[in-house]
Amino acid sequence: MRHYPPSLIALIRQLSRLPGIGEKTATRLALHILKASDRDARALADSIHAVKEKIHFCPGCFGLTDQPLCHICNDPDRIQKLVCVVEQTDDMASIEKSGSFQGVYHVLHGTLSPMNGIGPDDIRFQELVDRVQKGNVQEVIIATSTNVEGEATAVYIVEQLSRIPVKVTRIASGVPMGGDLKFVDQVTLKCALERRYEY
Amino acid sequence: MRHYPPSLIALIRQLSRLPGIGEKTATRLALHILKASDRDARALADSIHAVKEKIHFCPGCFGLTDQPLCHICNDPDRIQKLVCVVEQTDDMASIEKSGSFQGVYHVLHGTLSPMNGIGPDDIRFQELVDRVQKGNVQEVIIATSTNVEGEATAVYIVEQLSRIPVKVTRIASGVPMGGDLKFVDQVTLKCALERRYEY
Repeated sequence: MRHYPPSLIALIRQLSRLPGIGEKTATRLALHILKASDRDARALADSIHAVKEKIHFCPGCFGLTDQPLCHICNDPDRIQKLVCVVEQTDDMASIEKSGSFQGVYHVLHGTLSPMNGIGPDDIRFQELVDRVQKGNVQEVIIATSTNVEGEATAVYIVEQLSRIPVKVTRIASGVPMGGDLKFVDQVTLKCALERRYEY
Repeated sequence: MRHYPPSLIALIRQLSRLPGIGEKTATRLALHILKASDRDARALADSIHAVKEKIHFCPGCFGLTDQPLCHICNDPDRIQKLVCVVEQTDDMASIEKSGSFQGVYHVLHGTLSPMNGIGPDDIRFQELVDRVQKGNVQEVIIATSTNVEGEATAVYIVEQLSRIPVKVTRIASGVPMGGDLKFVDQVTLKCALERRYEY
């Protein structure tokens, strides 16, 4: 790598910081960017800037948006009383893709993981409690992953919400145990949503 | 993907245009960039800009540089009369990594490929002839790949340079060092046997 000019090395270093991109792939990508038209390279750099400038968390569901409120929270056709709790924004995208959910979301941005020192204060849990306590929520569907952390988080949420008069359900275990939501096929996801059971 | 905000979708689209990056990987990278610190994201975008602005072809060897002349062409310790012809800048980097070459380079930026309509005018071939004709070159080592296009390009260069009084050599082909004979293809083995040298 040291045989390349400094600014190219700088780009290779920046690219290798991305997840799953090693030095070899980063070099290939950097050489591609170098060969690409000025317009294409600028478009890539500008869209990185734009994403960091425009996108923020929706104050309703903590999903990603570039509007004051995300398009789901803002949609009058969505059932605002039905809140689906997910770990990450890409889990929300997976459920949306399945097209089987008409409610709204709450993104936790993580799971409880005492081993890694992640407690309820490190995820958007209190925000969920506040939202439910306001009384506009009829049902909370917990759609965290079915792995250890996801299950533990689900159990914790059920326990904490038991003091509030709200129906709490869990997506059906059509989702394979130990699986990660974003790798689940859409039919299974749809099935898991339809067969949710009361905790 | 359509469930993400427009500026995030724009970044995913830009990233999926990179070689070997599909929509899923692009989404993962975009979400990582979004989560990264402002400083890191800006550093990535800025290095893309910098690469496009600063890096150009070295007028000596057509390698990449951000200086008037690349560090190899500019190095008084390198043997300027010994020119190694390679297909691409990354081939140059591979040879540099081996640390076994003290001469300078000439990057063709491609190989002859009549099937794809790539002729001598589409690669930096005339520039090589001009350089040799100036009379400062003693030996041209052809280090193009040993595939069909690389071999055809080597043969063409030998033919064209035969009119000029210059020594033209080709890198040796044979069994890779540290390789197991049973994994070597028959063409390579045949070549290795034919070009055997006295110990």
